[in-house]
Amino acid sequence: MDSQTPQTRDVRALVRQMTLEEKASLLSGRDFWTTKPIERLGIPSVMMTDGPHGLRKQRADADNLGLFDSVPATCFPTAAALASSWDRGLIREVGEALGEECQAEDVAILLGPGANIKRSPLCGRNFEYFSEDPYLSSEMAAHHILGVQSKGVGTSLKHYAVNNQEHRRMSVDAVVDERTLREIYLASFEGAVRQAQPWTVMCSYNKVNGTYASEHPELLTRILKEEWGHEGFVVSDWGAVNDRAAGVAAGLELEMPGNGGINDRKVVEAVRNGSLPEDVLDRAVERLLTIILRAVDSRKPGASYDADAHHRLARRAAGESMVLLRNEDGTLPLEKSGRIAVIGELAVKPRYQGGGSSHVKPTRLDNPLDEIRRSAGPAAEVVYAQGYELANDAADDRLVEEALQAAAAADVAVIFAGLPESWESEGFDRTHLRMPGNQQSLIEAVAGVQERVVVVLCNGAPVEMPWLGNAKAVLEAYLGGQAMGGAVADVLFGDVNPSGKLAETFPHKLSDNPSHLFFPGEGDRVEYREGLFVGYRYYDAKEIEPLFPFGHGLSYTTFAYEKIEIDRARMSDGETAEVRVTIANTGGRAGKEIVQLYVRDRESSVIRPVKELKGFAKVELQPGERKTVTFRLGKRAFAYYEPAIRDWRVESGEFDILVGASSRDIRLQGSIYVESTVTLPWVIHRNTLIGDLLADERTAPYVRRMLEKNAPFGSAPTEELKVMLEAFLKYMPLRNIASFNRESATDLDALLEELNRLVSST
Amino acid sequence: MDSQTPQTRDVRALVRQMTLEEKASLLSGRDFWTTKPIERLGIPSVMMTDGPHGLRKQRADADNLGLFDSVPATCFPTAAALASSWDRGLIREVGEALGEECQAEDVAILLGPGANIKRSPLCGRNFEYFSEDPYLSSEMAAHHILGVQSKGVGTSLKHYAVNNQEHRRMSVDAVVDERTLREIYLASFEGAVRQAQPWTVMCSYNKVNGTYASEHPELLTRILKEEWGHEGFVVSDWGAVNDRAAGVAAGLELEMPGNGGINDRKVVEAVRNGSLPEDVLDRAVERLLTIILRAVDSRKPGASYDADAHHRLARRAAGESMVLLRNEDGTLPLEKSGRIAVIGELAVKPRYQGGGSSHVKPTRLDNPLDEIRRSAGPAAEVVYAQGYELANDAADDRLVEEALQAAAAADVAVIFAGLPESWESEGFDRTHLRMPGNQQSLIEAVAGVQERVVVVLCNGAPVEMPWLGNAKAVLEAYLGGQAMGGAVADVLFGDVNPSGKLAETFPHKLSDNPSHLFFPGEGDRVEYREGLFVGYRYYDAKEIEPLFPFGHGLSYTTFAYEKIEIDRARMSDGETAEVRVTIANTGGRAGKEIVQLYVRDRESSVIRPVKELKGFAKVELQPGERKTVTFRLGKRAFAYYEPAIRDWRVESGEFDILVGASSRDIRLQGSIYVESTVTLPWVIHRNTLIGDLLADERTAPYVRRMLEKNAPFGSAPTEELKVMLEAFLKYMPLRNIASFNRESATDLDALLEELNRLVSST
Repeated sequence: MDSQTPQTRDVRALVRQMTLEEKASLLSGRDFWTTKPIERLGIPSVMMTDGPHGLRKQRADADNLGLFDSVPATCFPTAAALASSWDRGLIREVGEALGEECQAEDVAILLGPGANIKRSPLCGRNFEYFSEDPYLSSEMAAHHILGVQSKGVGTSLKHYAVNNQEHRRMSVDAVVDERTLREIYLASFEGAVRQAQPWTVMCSYNKVNGTYASEHPELLTRILKEEWGHEGFVVSDWGAVNDRAAGVAAGLELEMPGNGGINDRKVVEAVRNGSLPEDVLDRAVERLLTIILRAVDSRKPGASYDADAHHRLARRAAGESMVLLRNEDGTLPLEKSGRIAVIGELAVKPRYQGGGSSHVKPTRLDNPLDEIRRSAGPAAEVVYAQGYELANDAADDRLVEEALQAAAAADVAVIFAGLPESWESEGFDRTHLRMPGNQQSLIEAVAGVQERVVVVLCNGAPVEMPWLGNAKAVLEAYLGGQAMGGAVADVLFGDVNPSGKLAETFPHKLSDNPSHLFFPGEGDRVEYREGLFVGYRYYDAKEIEPLFPFGHGLSYTTFAYEKIEIDRARMSDGETAEVRVTIANTGGRAGKEIVQLYVRDRESSVIRPVKELKGFAKVELQPGERKTVTFRLGKRAFAYYEPAIRDWRVESGEFDILVGASSRDIRLQGSIYVESTVTLPWVIHRNTLIGDLLADERTAPYVRRMLEKNAPFGSAPTEELKVMLEAFLKYMPLRNIASFNRESATDLDALLEELNRLVSST
Repeated sequence: MDSQTPQTRDVRALVRQMTLEEKASLLSGRDFWTTKPIERLGIPSVMMTDGPHGLRKQRADADNLGLFDSVPATCFPTAAALASSWDRGLIREVGEALGEECQAEDVAILLGPGANIKRSPLCGRNFEYFSEDPYLSSEMAAHHILGVQSKGVGTSLKHYAVNNQEHRRMSVDAVVDERTLREIYLASFEGAVRQAQPWTVMCSYNKVNGTYASEHPELLTRILKEEWGHEGFVVSDWGAVNDRAAGVAAGLELEMPGNGGINDRKVVEAVRNGSLPEDVLDRAVERLLTIILRAVDSRKPGASYDADAHHRLARRAAGESMVLLRNEDGTLPLEKSGRIAVIGELAVKPRYQGGGSSHVKPTRLDNPLDEIRRSAGPAAEVVYAQGYELANDAADDRLVEEALQAAAAADVAVIFAGLPESWESEGFDRTHLRMPGNQQSLIEAVAGVQERVVVVLCNGAPVEMPWLGNAKAVLEAYLGGQAMGGAVADVLFGDVNPSGKLAETFPHKLSDNPSHLFFPGEGDRVEYREGLFVGYRYYDAKEIEPLFPFGHGLSYTTFAYEKIEIDRARMSDGETAEVRVTIANTGGRAGKEIVQLYVRDRESSVIRPVKELKGFAKVELQPGERKTVTFRLGKRAFAYYEPAIRDWRVESGEFDILVGASSRDIRLQGSIYVESTVTLPWVIHRNTLIGDLLADERTAPYVRRMLEKNAPFGSAPTEELKVMLEAFLKYMPLRNIASFNRESATDLDALLEELNRLVSST
């Protein structure tokens, strides 16, 4: 916290005026959605409401959770959709709109965004999360936060941390190794905290390596506050508190919802019996008050927002986010003429958001069929057939027959398909990646009577597509918010050129997923055994062909990747390299390309992914236009997290810079040598291998001389034997020098002293 | 140990007569290959020599390791080959022959067999190991031991434990979870120890979960001696001792090779300073003396063996072990007429054993080309072309041209291919699964001029076969011992009908292997993250199509799986079920079929493989003949290892019994319900989930009543909301009952007491 601001000084003075009981009471909510006021000191109550893609402010008379009754708000595309835009500016715009709506409803803090990594496509809450990649996820989260907070409204970056499943989410212990925690799961939060300073961070329900996230000092204090410099407060996910005093000590400032005074009394008691130092409590209250006062200072009484403008933004955002997965024979865009059969109940009862706490009551709702009719205009005839019942997985012969007739008589069939709301929601995970059987059989049947089949998918996370060969084109619309219907029409007819790319891998089958064997764990323990190999990192390393790879997405135009320039051949890990990439629109239509930059360490002494996303840019190009985009690569682009030094580290060596249109479509390649400025500590001991000593230039000459004097196997009689014995020697510990050659037994202690001197004197 | 035998009483008396220094001295070798005598007490020295597939007794004037100069001995097929026979009787016969040769050479203990699991096909020593499956491996090891020991010669079951790579084998820490350790890596040893009581067990070089195997009390004493009842002694792998006193305390009786007195003195010192109780030392000496005296008592002075008969056995064993991987268009067996081109240097310089300590100097050596000529007889013309140089991976145009001419002019081309000895050996691991490039290109070139291509493979472990489409037939001969040449001829011409089946999965590519991402580890740590999913257990669960699956192997005849009968529909976990399977030879030739029985747990609360091998039988059938084989399935066939009770446990439920010709060719199926007699302890605490309480019949009624009184979310206004709230409730801990409904906050302590009473009173 910046102790120079007057506000902070006020806060400290305020805290000094508070009784122990008042301080403890402030650390929990008044009710489900607001903090406690302390009228005596003029401390007001502020309200939080669920997000992240819209405001869910409870009506006064609703159920506790307010899940099904809230004030109307714009339902923007869900995070899964927005992330597919790869558009920092767009997500910031959406954030600004959300901030305006919060101001209009006097909401101080919007509970989002979610930066959890999509470890498994089964996680019921994936629609609320951005990506399987921590860099993309953190960039999206940061710009969402920057947008909301620019309007004087706080955010709550959630669910911190390693909350990657709904299954037993309140009791499960997520067991994850330190590098994976840092490089994947925390990195997604780290980038957002460092760039955007969310007013609050929400801790998750689960345990992380044995300790509840709500009372995890390493996560909440050492890493979040001390290392990343988070200045705001941590709020518990609703009901996540286990041991309240331990939570306060660990850095959890606010418990939500209220606890009826029970935990407040426990905090008081802990201070009284000395188990919780009062200055820890004071600092927690300071953090809370700082944000509460900032919220109050930022209030815009009488604010309102333009619901029409926000609906138009929701439509634009949805259009930018849709991913054209497949488009054979230029099936899309459709002509605004001829006969178009629109099939599927989802075309009139769209799925546009997920279930659970993020469920928004939209200000209005586009009907995709109506929007398609409107966009198609008078020259086209749009006919509709229901095709299937969303509420029932069994095929209905009459509906199928009707759909086939409509399709057969049309020039093209557009089938809306996807997942029913009851299949994906906060609170539980899917157990498979299939779509309802009646939808799948419908697509296959329609393809039997109509060659031109377009499938529009509405779902929060990947599905298997055994029917893919039956569809000429597939448009992934995700859960696209209240204006999804209009946006689909825009893209189908080419009024908008699709530019989304997948922020996650679509596998051929569930068992291809890296977490498959160990998801969702055994009892209350889930082991992240795939480690760093999440998403494309796994498909790359295992050489598994995905159905659609991370970063994939088609356009109605084409792009040429013309040139890559790296401004230096070598750099130290303290420097920054610039990579300039020139691309051109080689097609006949304006469009946007998402240029992706991956870094590959050619050789490493530690286990690393084949390549990792370290930069991306969305570039708009008119036909024939070319632009050069610049990426800056600093230490983190090349580093892994080294537990031995509790820091990021680059291993000296050559790195490939891979630039392309998807993780599996690399178009340009360069390389750079990065020199590390850090030497890892090395203590040579009796079990240090002779091969390791021979491989280090500091010790090799000495050890070579030693071996010449005291060959551990005696002198090799033949050249062939010599080669073999050298292989044996390589993996032999120093301790064995003695046992394999007793006559010339070396004094091991003296030897170790000498060798350690050699490595420490450099 | 059976304390009733007179020998044991003698041993105890002997130990009482020994000084502390004498006792300590006995715990290490005199030199590289013998134990120390104590002449004063008439304790003789005994000799050990490397195995396992032949005797490697060092000549007096050889190098320490004697790797390249030893007395001649029959080189039987390596373990990788023998395991493919799936023939308990055959491997026992081979063991008996090995025992005879040891007696003839006055060798007391043959250092083998190796029962390490083939975690990765890259492990340089896989040729010395049996299988990726612990049941098959333990059965093979047990019958090897029973055979050798029936001749009064000891064995050394090695390398105990979790030594599944050569890379950094003397320093690496194998990190493996308890279930995987028990169900996979230890199970392979357990079955052999329990069935066959090897005189000695050899501890491995590596660490297991942080502790050197040579000083691991859990492995050496608690599990091996106490749980499995091992009666012999443990010997260190040569040079595996780290802290000798800790090793003695942990249960490592014999250090090999000798230590020049250094460690003996340390043991004395440890006893003197009280850190090693003298009775622990006494028991170690008793175990050593028991085996030494047994060896001496079993000596057969003047014994000899029939080298011709052993060569014939080696040929029969090799023939039974070869696996016919592919045989399109009945290409094999070959006619003994026409022109046969034999191609490849391996046909005249056969690879028949691996490198390292198991390297045997054979009594004679079949030349495959000569044997093919002999078997083919006068009506056939056999021509030879070298094709490639084994010592050089580059193609030699002249050799290729010569091979093409020979192949083009012949009726069939038999190409000998495989791995050079320098590619696979003890001491290092492979880094890829490719064959030398010149062999691969040769196969492809020959297929261009000759339609009938047969490839005979000589290799110790799987290779990738991108050339597979170019070969009509592929015979996997592994490293088949000194009579491999004759055995190949037997199989090629049908004098022997091939009956081997793979004891390991052949993957399409290295990255398909379960350990791929984490093999061989980082620095001195290798994590067995794939857990139970080793070999076919992984390919099954991940739905990855192998190149050739575990258990696969073709015959020149055909077999029908006619009937499966299970003698009961239900059993308790204390009972044994009998499964009778009837198979028939439906082809025109006598042959042997390996019938495999796998068990699948239909539903489990713990992570389990899809299916596991629990029985197999090799059945010989004349044309038209049918036989019924019987399998007995007890508790272990259905159990997993439950760490909570440190015991094997069956979860009540239905199990499928799958019988087939390979792990991917299940022909018959039945099922049985197994009832557990064990209830796991359950302590209900504040974070026990409400869903778990509702799922247990002991607690459900009480909890349901409680929830009716104190609905945590209030009463649900709609049916839809009710369903959703029920999902939330399922994963909610008891502690939250209070915080979500303060008015009716339950006394949590009283509630826990009542619930725990309910589950403990049953």
